[in-house]
Amino acid sequence: MQNHYTLGEIAKIIDAQLTGNPDSKIYSVASLKNATQGQISFLVPSRYQLVMSNRFLKLLPTTNASAVLLAPEHQSQCQVDTLVMSDPYKGLIEMSKLFKKTTAHYPGIHPTAIIGKNCHIAATASIGAYAVLGDNCDIDADTIIGPYSFLGQEVSIGAQSTIHPRVTIEQNVTIGDRAVIYSGAVIGSEGFGLVRQSQGWCRIPHLGTVILGNDVEIGANTTIDRGSVDDTVIGNGVKLDNQIQIGHGVNIDDHTVIAGCVGIGGSTRIGKNCMIGGATTINDNIIISDNIIVTGMSQVSKSLSTPGVYSSGTHIQPYDMWRKNTARLNSLDKLAKKIFRLEKEQHD
Amino acid sequence: MQNHYTLGEIAKIIDAQLTGNPDSKIYSVASLKNATQGQISFLVPSRYQLVMSNRFLKLLPTTNASAVLLAPEHQSQCQVDTLVMSDPYKGLIEMSKLFKKTTAHYPGIHPTAIIGKNCHIAATASIGAYAVLGDNCDIDADTIIGPYSFLGQEVSIGAQSTIHPRVTIEQNVTIGDRAVIYSGAVIGSEGFGLVRQSQGWCRIPHLGTVILGNDVEIGANTTIDRGSVDDTVIGNGVKLDNQIQIGHGVNIDDHTVIAGCVGIGGSTRIGKNCMIGGATTINDNIIISDNIIVTGMSQVSKSLSTPGVYSSGTHIQPYDMWRKNTARLNSLDKLAKKIFRLEKEQHD
Amino acid sequence: MQNHYTLGEIAKIIDAQLTGNPDSKIYSVASLKNATQGQISFLVPSRYQLVMSNRFLKLLPTTNASAVLLAPEHQSQCQVDTLVMSDPYKGLIEMSKLFKKTTAHYPGIHPTAIIGKNCHIAATASIGAYAVLGDNCDIDADTIIGPYSFLGQEVSIGAQSTIHPRVTIEQNVTIGDRAVIYSGAVIGSEGFGLVRQSQGWCRIPHLGTVILGNDVEIGANTTIDRGSVDDTVIGNGVKLDNQIQIGHGVNIDDHTVIAGCVGIGGSTRIGKNCMIGGATTINDNIIISDNIIVTGMSQVSKSLSTPGVYSSGTHIQPYDMWRKNTARLNSLDKLAKKIFRLEKEQHD
Repeated sequence: MQNHYTLGEIAKIIDAQLTGNPDSKIYSVASLKNATQGQISFLVPSRYQLVMSNRFLKLLPTTNASAVLLAPEHQSQCQVDTLVMSDPYKGLIEMSKLFKKTTAHYPGIHPTAIIGKNCHIAATASIGAYAVLGDNCDIDADTIIGPYSFLGQEVSIGAQSTIHPRVTIEQNVTIGDRAVIYSGAVIGSEGFGLVRQSQGWCRIPHLGTVILGNDVEIGANTTIDRGSVDDTVIGNGVKLDNQIQIGHGVNIDDHTVIAGCVGIGGSTRIGKNCMIGGATTINDNIIISDNIIVTGMSQVSKSLSTPGVYSSGTHIQPYDMWRKNTARLNSLDKLAKKIFRLEKEQHD
Repeated sequence: MQNHYTLGEIAKIIDAQLTGNPDSKIYSVASLKNATQGQISFLVPSRYQLVMSNRFLKLLPTTNASAVLLAPEHQSQCQVDTLVMSDPYKGLIEMSKLFKKTTAHYPGIHPTAIIGKNCHIAATASIGAYAVLGDNCDIDADTIIGPYSFLGQEVSIGAQSTIHPRVTIEQNVTIGDRAVIYSGAVIGSEGFGLVRQSQGWCRIPHLGTVILGNDVEIGANTTIDRGSVDDTVIGNGVKLDNQIQIGHGVNIDDHTVIAGCVGIGGSTRIGKNCMIGGATTINDNIIISDNIIVTGMSQVSKSLSTPGVYSSGTHIQPYDMWRKNTARLNSLDKLAKKIFRLEKEQHD
Repeated sequence: MQNHYTLGEIAKIIDAQLTGNPDSKIYSVASLKNATQGQISFLVPSRYQLVMSNRFLKLLPTTNASAVLLAPEHQSQCQVDTLVMSDPYKGLIEMSKLFKKTTAHYPGIHPTAIIGKNCHIAATASIGAYAVLGDNCDIDADTIIGPYSFLGQEVSIGAQSTIHPRVTIEQNVTIGDRAVIYSGAVIGSEGFGLVRQSQGWCRIPHLGTVILGNDVEIGANTTIDRGSVDDTVIGNGVKLDNQIQIGHGVNIDDHTVIAGCVGIGGSTRIGKNCMIGGATTINDNIIISDNIIVTGMSQVSKSLSTPGVYSSGTHIQPYDMWRKNTARLNSLDKLAKKIFRLEKEQHD
């Protein structure tokens, strides 16, 4: 990686319109507030809001950045050099790749890593300190396995993937190219498939595994169980946030994104391009079609087949109000019947 | 472990009725879909459904398995050898044990494991790479401690237990026989017992520990806090799924099963043979009697003493409907009073 | 640490009134139930209840402890020596410090720890077995880094902090004095900031980090994401329980306490001295003022600016009741309109 780019080089790479000095040297990306000389900043809408947040816009006139990447409508408020694009997010993502520091602390195989028999590890891959790989693992080009990451037997990971420190990937799991798996994730432990026998609950055998497509990202401390009969399958471009639990045999189709703390029961299927809000629970054996949005902290206890936005849950209220209103909920069926009776009586 | 069994041997071990060639060699178990020659498959109801899923039944006539374990009513649809049992689950669990691959990658004590003073480790136990055991630990026969698992001082683990890689068991914790603890679990960290003092919140001392009975299973990334005064006690045969949080001083009695993402507050007691659905929250100081079922994503904020099924929460709706209906919930008490007034007026 | 204190010494240190033998030797603290000769016990209200639990009070007359720390109103029921204080919790916390066993199994830098370049590690700090520290880390006096804890580059940890085994702290994170971080926590992984581009969802760059004040405690398997533009900031004296998820750019002000399994969305701000109940979900971009209490399993989807107690969620009911009542909730808006119509008709 080169240690700097000129503003002109960046403009060309990200296809932005440059106003200012093309020879200005840029060493890194920083926020409007923290950027100093030699850094480029950016002004993009908050990803949560369609309009520009004033919080960031008001920092624009006084930034100490050498240059700012922004949309045409904000250029007039900027006192320093600019790179202008209609979609500055696109430019930001490309530009950040130029300056991204590698997380490979130990290129090659660290001497403390323990590698099983018959593993195929690409020459450009990096296996971190104290990593443990089982027999017959396959690690493709440019992939990084962080310190303490444990791979069981016959784990296969594609190219350009990053497994952060302290990840567990159990035997036979297959992971595609450009995966990012954050610390504490556990991929491929046995699911919660139990049957009652005379001596108590017994776990059914888990013959399936977990298969992750390309460009999948898995958040910190997220867990994905292996299938009991069928495999657990995560499609291309799926992004999972932190502390998500994916049950055995679940199927998540391409480009679906799931926010933190979601729990998904066994054998549930979620379509393409869905967005599942944080802390939502999806029961087992549910089918969710493509292009469905579920808002946060919902409970999905029936299948959803029509594209659209779905919700459950109740609003936050001052405690005294909540106590009274929620108590009435416990007799709502009786209240409804009273209404029907009143209606009937009145209209008779 | 022998590398194959004959179909006749399996029939005898699991006590099933054999139709076909008793000398047929079986090397492993596989699903109806994936099984090939030399493998035995099975047809059992989905554990979630009382009736047989058509999804699996329709695969029966065309399976390439050498034999299938199934119930009498399905035998006529099978083209290959069969093992027939009235409870094919029972047979499946027994049969799977015959073919289960050991997870002990490193029998004995791995040279990189660090063992404290005065530990008693059975000759048949296996301590994995980079495991760290504190002083005075006691590991019984045939128990496997996975790579990177950390045991504090005076931890005791019974026989035939499997501690997967990357588990933390803090000092003084006691675990029975045949435990299975999955990766990322933390057993025995201090509970969230705080009291407000002039300088801020202070943690109360945690003098208790965690005691796990026999046949306990703990899912990936589940956490169980040690008790502050009394111990946290998990009974025999209790099964906990992934990402569960058990507060300090909780007591869970024998053969209760708890699904993923459940949180249980401090000092709560749960009886025998209960079933707690996923993502349910149980407040602190609650008492739940034996044989109680709580459905998923419920909030248990009062004790439950009568056996039966309990629920809370709301149904998923299209967003526009949800928004209108939920808004009304915030004035439900007023609406109820209107109904009572109307009723009174009309009947006067 | 000395191995015992006399009762008179303890009374002086914690400023309690002694009744009994000041020369009695005390070796440790134990519960009323388990304490034996040479141990001191205590009687304090349950932290959950304002009144004394009978569960502990009834153990007082028969305890085998050498002495009991208690409030004046309970002294008459005690048969052994007493230390009397109006706030026995204060005394308990001070007294426990006297007897607390150190968790530093390996003082100094363990020979298997891997330390990056230019790290500053205080002579009194302890770095555990198989710890991995990146370049330029700064570990202050008396701080303990547990086995397998991973610190990225340029991590700074203040004095007298305890990082339990198996914690991940990513690059550039700053932690204050007297921190306690439990096993499995992940501090500083990248947040779930995604934008949709033509090739699928892309993660926005995370230029921010995580900054923890003094006296912060982080529970087992809790995750705190680094900021994308602004830093994630956790104030002094903040206590986080287990399995909490803190999104990128969140700000939690001093002395706020958050119970287990809470999820907090990106860029949300929580004031000082708040108490957030377990399993609550707080949406992104929310602002919660100082001194706000949110009860367990609530969903906070709007900002809260008036101090007080807030709740959402529904009560647990027997399943048959719940099914009927919750079904009515899906037509509550229609029911409300019926009521208004009836009211209008009746009053016309």
